[in-house]
Amino acid sequence: MLIRGLYLVTDRSLCLHHSLEEVILKSVQGGVQIVQLREKEASSREFFALATRIKELLSPFSIPLLINDRLDIALAVGAHGLHLGQSDLPVIEARRLLGDDKIIGLSVETEQDVLQAKQLPVDYLGVSPIFATPTKRDTKSAWGLDGLRWIRKEIELPLVAIGGINDTNAEDVISAGADSLALVSYLCSADDPTHNAEKISKLWKH
Amino acid sequence: MLIRGLYLVTDRSLCLHHSLEEVILKSVQGGVQIVQLREKEASSREFFALATRIKELLSPFSIPLLINDRLDIALAVGAHGLHLGQSDLPVIEARRLLGDDKIIGLSVETEQDVLQAKQLPVDYLGVSPIFATPTKRDTKSAWGLDGLRWIRKEIELPLVAIGGINDTNAEDVISAGADSLALVSYLCSADDPTHNAEKISKLWKH
Repeated sequence: MLIRGLYLVTDRSLCLHHSLEEVILKSVQGGVQIVQLREKEASSREFFALATRIKELLSPFSIPLLINDRLDIALAVGAHGLHLGQSDLPVIEARRLLGDDKIIGLSVETEQDVLQAKQLPVDYLGVSPIFATPTKRDTKSAWGLDGLRWIRKEIELPLVAIGGINDTNAEDVISAGADSLALVSYLCSADDPTHNAEKISKLWKH
Repeated sequence: MLIRGLYLVTDRSLCLHHSLEEVILKSVQGGVQIVQLREKEASSREFFALATRIKELLSPFSIPLLINDRLDIALAVGAHGLHLGQSDLPVIEARRLLGDDKIIGLSVETEQDVLQAKQLPVDYLGVSPIFATPTKRDTKSAWGLDGLRWIRKEIELPLVAIGGINDTNAEDVISAGADSLALVSYLCSADDPTHNAEKISKLWKH
């Protein structure tokens, strides 16, 4: 599956103006092509119920749903894949249990993470964070555009940049080598997620 | 697999005098026959690494290792089974993904939970809590011995009582219908887990 275009990472605590379901639908209407469901506080049962609903919601649009961290939730709902951080299950274990047909993405926060990822069965790398952001506090220092250019030279995998991306810097991030831009607060907290998504998704239409 | 005898539920925050590994080994030396690894704060990678170590630790003793809540960790380490609470993955999904050869236990906190469990593919019920305890604050009111007797009449599944069990009440809980007694702080916080385990495991030897 092609990892390209606009990528929504959910954060329910940032959904200020709309429900999570509305944020997702409106973002898809604005051109989002991949959705990653991230739930760090929910119980397993809540996460399962939510992932089931979101998968049904996205099904008519053929938008892949990835689950953050939780392989069990991805398996239980039959998601299209899993996004792993450096503190999540090892990629090798996840690939063994998910099979070769599912997408596995891996966040890279350091140069060492990138070099190690060359040996791993992943479908894309999450370049995290590309810019400093209050959304993710548990990450190392930001990659910046120069860091992204370095990763682009090191590795041929699709690169999904995440962190602090908005309409003022999106074009620069694509020029520096990102295949996909992941947005969290820029869509989740938007008054009009469709409008915000359109402002960035149009960059792939040229 | 027979669910009977002394059952250790781990809680690293309660391991005051020994490491978790030591608590487990010493408890097994005192007669513990089942271990459930419960980690509510660990990252997925930490939980996976810990479960891998504990499975290796228990392997020479043929003691089954059950994982609390996390089906992905149970699958990744090849645990003997999974213990589910009412806020965890639905039993049906867990059974579908784990297969019929693994143990699945389910905590019941209300009469409705017990009646619903009759229809579910579970191997035992965790009667939780049997007595009030500070270890689990998120549960309903305690079952007490009368509640346990009621469940015993309702259902033929093995019953694992948990919550506030120690050497002063263990015999009463067995008499009221428990096949197995689960201990948390009584072993995890013990100066001498072997001695504490022996005081209770001997009840099955008569």
